[in-house]
Amino acid sequence: MVVVMQPGAEPQHVDAVVSRVEAAGGQAFVSRGVSRVIIGLVGDIDQLSTLDLAGLPGVGQVTRVSTEYKLVSREQHPDRSVVHVRGVPIGPDTVTLIAGPCAVETPEQTLASALMAQAAGATMLRGGAFKPRTSPYAFQGLGELGLKILAEVREETGLPIVTEVVSAHHVDMVAEYADMLQIGTRNMQNFALLQAIGEVGKPVMLKRGMTATIEEWLMAAEYIAQRGNLEIVLCERGIRTHEPATRNTLDVSAVPVVQRLSHLPVIVDPSHSGGRRDLVLPLSKAGIVVGADGIIVDVHPQPDLALCDGAQALVREDLEQLSRAVADLTVYVGRQPARRRWASAS
Amino acid sequence: MVVVMQPGAEPQHVDAVVSRVEAAGGQAFVSRGVSRVIIGLVGDIDQLSTLDLAGLPGVGQVTRVSTEYKLVSREQHPDRSVVHVRGVPIGPDTVTLIAGPCAVETPEQTLASALMAQAAGATMLRGGAFKPRTSPYAFQGLGELGLKILAEVREETGLPIVTEVVSAHHVDMVAEYADMLQIGTRNMQNFALLQAIGEVGKPVMLKRGMTATIEEWLMAAEYIAQRGNLEIVLCERGIRTHEPATRNTLDVSAVPVVQRLSHLPVIVDPSHSGGRRDLVLPLSKAGIVVGADGIIVDVHPQPDLALCDGAQALVREDLEQLSRAVADLTVYVGRQPARRRWASAS
Amino acid sequence: MVVVMQPGAEPQHVDAVVSRVEAAGGQAFVSRGVSRVIIGLVGDIDQLSTLDLAGLPGVGQVTRVSTEYKLVSREQHPDRSVVHVRGVPIGPDTVTLIAGPCAVETPEQTLASALMAQAAGATMLRGGAFKPRTSPYAFQGLGELGLKILAEVREETGLPIVTEVVSAHHVDMVAEYADMLQIGTRNMQNFALLQAIGEVGKPVMLKRGMTATIEEWLMAAEYIAQRGNLEIVLCERGIRTHEPATRNTLDVSAVPVVQRLSHLPVIVDPSHSGGRRDLVLPLSKAGIVVGADGIIVDVHPQPDLALCDGAQALVREDLEQLSRAVADLTVYVGRQPARRRWASAS
Amino acid sequence: MVVVMQPGAEPQHVDAVVSRVEAAGGQAFVSRGVSRVIIGLVGDIDQLSTLDLAGLPGVGQVTRVSTEYKLVSREQHPDRSVVHVRGVPIGPDTVTLIAGPCAVETPEQTLASALMAQAAGATMLRGGAFKPRTSPYAFQGLGELGLKILAEVREETGLPIVTEVVSAHHVDMVAEYADMLQIGTRNMQNFALLQAIGEVGKPVMLKRGMTATIEEWLMAAEYIAQRGNLEIVLCERGIRTHEPATRNTLDVSAVPVVQRLSHLPVIVDPSHSGGRRDLVLPLSKAGIVVGADGIIVDVHPQPDLALCDGAQALVREDLEQLSRAVADLTVYVGRQPARRRWASAS
Repeated sequence: MVVVMQPGAEPQHVDAVVSRVEAAGGQAFVSRGVSRVIIGLVGDIDQLSTLDLAGLPGVGQVTRVSTEYKLVSREQHPDRSVVHVRGVPIGPDTVTLIAGPCAVETPEQTLASALMAQAAGATMLRGGAFKPRTSPYAFQGLGELGLKILAEVREETGLPIVTEVVSAHHVDMVAEYADMLQIGTRNMQNFALLQAIGEVGKPVMLKRGMTATIEEWLMAAEYIAQRGNLEIVLCERGIRTHEPATRNTLDVSAVPVVQRLSHLPVIVDPSHSGGRRDLVLPLSKAGIVVGADGIIVDVHPQPDLALCDGAQALVREDLEQLSRAVADLTVYVGRQPARRRWASAS
Repeated sequence: MVVVMQPGAEPQHVDAVVSRVEAAGGQAFVSRGVSRVIIGLVGDIDQLSTLDLAGLPGVGQVTRVSTEYKLVSREQHPDRSVVHVRGVPIGPDTVTLIAGPCAVETPEQTLASALMAQAAGATMLRGGAFKPRTSPYAFQGLGELGLKILAEVREETGLPIVTEVVSAHHVDMVAEYADMLQIGTRNMQNFALLQAIGEVGKPVMLKRGMTATIEEWLMAAEYIAQRGNLEIVLCERGIRTHEPATRNTLDVSAVPVVQRLSHLPVIVDPSHSGGRRDLVLPLSKAGIVVGADGIIVDVHPQPDLALCDGAQALVREDLEQLSRAVADLTVYVGRQPARRRWASAS
Repeated sequence: MVVVMQPGAEPQHVDAVVSRVEAAGGQAFVSRGVSRVIIGLVGDIDQLSTLDLAGLPGVGQVTRVSTEYKLVSREQHPDRSVVHVRGVPIGPDTVTLIAGPCAVETPEQTLASALMAQAAGATMLRGGAFKPRTSPYAFQGLGELGLKILAEVREETGLPIVTEVVSAHHVDMVAEYADMLQIGTRNMQNFALLQAIGEVGKPVMLKRGMTATIEEWLMAAEYIAQRGNLEIVLCERGIRTHEPATRNTLDVSAVPVVQRLSHLPVIVDPSHSGGRRDLVLPLSKAGIVVGADGIIVDVHPQPDLALCDGAQALVREDLEQLSRAVADLTVYVGRQPARRRWASAS
Repeated sequence: MVVVMQPGAEPQHVDAVVSRVEAAGGQAFVSRGVSRVIIGLVGDIDQLSTLDLAGLPGVGQVTRVSTEYKLVSREQHPDRSVVHVRGVPIGPDTVTLIAGPCAVETPEQTLASALMAQAAGATMLRGGAFKPRTSPYAFQGLGELGLKILAEVREETGLPIVTEVVSAHHVDMVAEYADMLQIGTRNMQNFALLQAIGEVGKPVMLKRGMTATIEEWLMAAEYIAQRGNLEIVLCERGIRTHEPATRNTLDVSAVPVVQRLSHLPVIVDPSHSGGRRDLVLPLSKAGIVVGADGIIVDVHPQPDLALCDGAQALVREDLEQLSRAVADLTVYVGRQPARRRWASAS
């Protein structure tokens, strides 16, 4: 941490900062400038940050410097990780295509979506059984029935399932069916949920909060990691900006930035970022060439009948284009398609 | 809802929209312009919004017009509501001052804060026992022990308590101790929590998500209302903007805007908006003159020792100034201080 | 400035930073932490900031600490300034009401607006002759004809005029007629315009860019000051945020924040912030109680015929309410109405 | 346009809207719903938008529907345009690489940068002689001397020049030297500058304002087009968001969105978006695969000595990687490198 004193701070103000830091077992290094004093702090950041130095008289600004996430940081774990979901890898050597309906509606629609996805090269199935919706009057998902449908479709297709969990209450239930638990954008800082998921032994996909900074996102991942679960895949899904032409703005820079800071895999969701079918293909391409470890897209056999976000779901023709683009660009970035490495133990 | 067709949309595209709306029991009213066709829809908005008209060929844009929140809207309930918290009113005739420590740390610190608050005219006590923190390594609150301390301080001071609940798991436990449950900014769209709180028979303070629109905020309130709880107080606590000088930007306009749309009381949190002690007083004044029904502030007997957000907590002298400002401006806006109307049944 | 080295930076990387700083006449003070080295820099910030230290190997982050604005800063000029516009003061002892039409349309409309304004206690007249508009097809103002109308209305009413200048080309022409030149939100970083205005001997009102930080705003003021003109009044007019209910979000905190950093007067524009007539009164009150040195509002004798921003212009009844609020709250904040102190020399 | 009346609006309010629209030569089509009346308007949008319908009693909301930009819209000009800069095409069949120093500092540095750029496949040279800087104390560019240096380097290398103009005053002077005039992000709504540039017969590169919507950006282009200049290239250069890890957030979606709305070419500036050297390569790739018509990057022979934005300038090794990526992905998107088609007439 660095403490910058106000111009005109008294010597006893500086001393007070130093004393408090030293009392807490840290070291304070004072640098006197022409108009300001700067104090560099060394020690246990967690300890130091409880000291409320900003509240001391004469203190102008306190800046954290070292990262507060540890378990997910690349400083601790220099090699990038691979997360396996029922044998399907997500990591630096592959580009994993995950596809499926936004919401599970019926067994037929889910199976049809899964077969479309699989034909296009997807090796994991997405699908929502619990849907967090802005309006309490919108379709909220089928709940456990939806999970059962997903499990049946997995039986038929062999595709591992990722599905959202919206409450700590449901973690165990969802974990019984799903291969990977998804934390949605609105729950990225639902710390009770993060902790509950940290304790269940399943891979997790953590979507970025739509207005979270990258640092907050990694801190949210740290909450999961701290409970012993490092099987975390981050998912960039667009941030809220002033631009109304797209639902959110895909922050494509976040992919390389995160990969430099954290060893966790990062994938991109082009469907929810743009909220428009015509942007799914270009944003998928952008994601892959900047280094994303996978792409997750909405598909629907009949998007005009979808109960949720039909406007962004890919139809069959789109999916063929996407499939080709993923294949070509996977080669371009020197990676492999993400094939399942071992048979399901179910 | 209004559907705007793309320029050059075919007549059969228009017909398809009309048919789908009529099939769902709505009415569609077609207006042909020089370059575009516009279709006005009339009917059950919930029904109509599941139709995914935006996914039909030729459709350019679909705009919702009527509000989707109902129970909390002023259209349904023209008079502004009063919420009573153990006899203390929050509503259009009063300005309620709520004060207390950001986090409950010790019985002594909590009692000292409560007495400071009470001396300054506060008629409710705030204090966090469960603290949602960006970092898993930061102080997370005392949990149930903190709730017990709050309850003891209520015994001694008679001040009703508002405290945050961070997980649906804890709703019953927190409700046993608290007089009003607070939903924090990070949980505004934690729908499982909103629903759980909707089912407990206690008043709720719903903080605005730091990047929520006013519409999303009212929809979140609707989630609670829909479960039968209309004892909701909204709390504007600053939104995330590009300005780094303050932690968040107090959206003071939100107070009159919300009061026009909803019958629920609205209060302002000047401490968390600015994140700076020197802004608490001016922002409190601003809140009151734009019509806020109350103010909620952090106080601490020794802010430099606070375990949480000490930089923004008011000390004794500040609180005297605040007390005077609240008193004077309460008169200016033609309201009363919010005194407890009946003795505690505890 | 503070330089934070990357974890694992080599000693020679640290030496390189130190050498470059010292070669430029600065001092570098090295603080070695457990995992990082921090270097505090002391010297001429302008000089130091040209060194591109961030580009050196091993450097993690470079943070500016001392303010880069000087002439407008309170460090240089501890007392808050008063700017006089043809004898009307804007500064810490008064609350100045400035009112008038968004755009000058006709002599009749301008005079009627000015008389309405004056009756409500306004002591300065606003009115646009050059209108920067998002669309090239929108009404762009009457140009010099508008300036002549304003000058005639000043003759009749004695009200000094503030009007916008949109191009360095027009500075001399506008300065011939106006008593105070306004720089609009879209031109806050039009540096050629700032410099041209810095050289003309007239007071200036500098609106905040709708997405400018406070620091950028003060830097823009510094551009004017640097050319010898310190007669600058800052005007907070709302910032662009994610909230669609208002045109922009009034950043009411900016008033006390700026007053702490700069000696320049700060006023508030409640009309353009909210873009809604019903918000002008509450936002004006908020501005005054947080310490604004004045308020600038749009009025129009017949807003439904206005060629520009009629939706936010006050009508006669509104103006009476505003007048009363300004008078009452001016007393509350312990200030005077801003009366002209000397007769016009015209 | 669509007018949505407030719930409870009186019939005479509806009539008033209709009358005003018809008096202005438009048509109004009334649709009565259960709780609201919606009025679709047909006619000259420019005319209709001056009517201030939002100011009429009973009116709830007025929404523009048809685009207000015309000359730059794809509705008017279905084929995407090609802009030629001294024979170098920027348009749908090519990927044009533009490179050079952020600021022109010396003849040697400029020539070295140009040769680096050319070796990497660039067919245009960028370089700033006039630099708009947030601080008045930062290096502001060499002015006309910088233009002369650019012209000399063009003589030696044959590379056409694009350079920024910051004031309407300088348009003629800059146009004498430059092959393409650049309008920077801070001047995107400097309408006087847009108009002046519209009148000079040279291609223009219009950078997106860092907080402009796509619609505002196209409107700014319309200002230029309206003065008779359609040789406009749009440049996406990142928008201001809440994310601090990058200087701005590249809005990669803007490329396909703009190409759908406008026939103008769109290029991407990965250097200024991210502000970090390590992001230039991934963001360039992202730009090309989403369909950008070119890439503009900062290079510098010795970035650690650069007077401006050295932290983002590419060095020789980076440029080789970029060169390869541009070549490979140009093939991937089925385009050609942008070679000069005819010899310079100088």
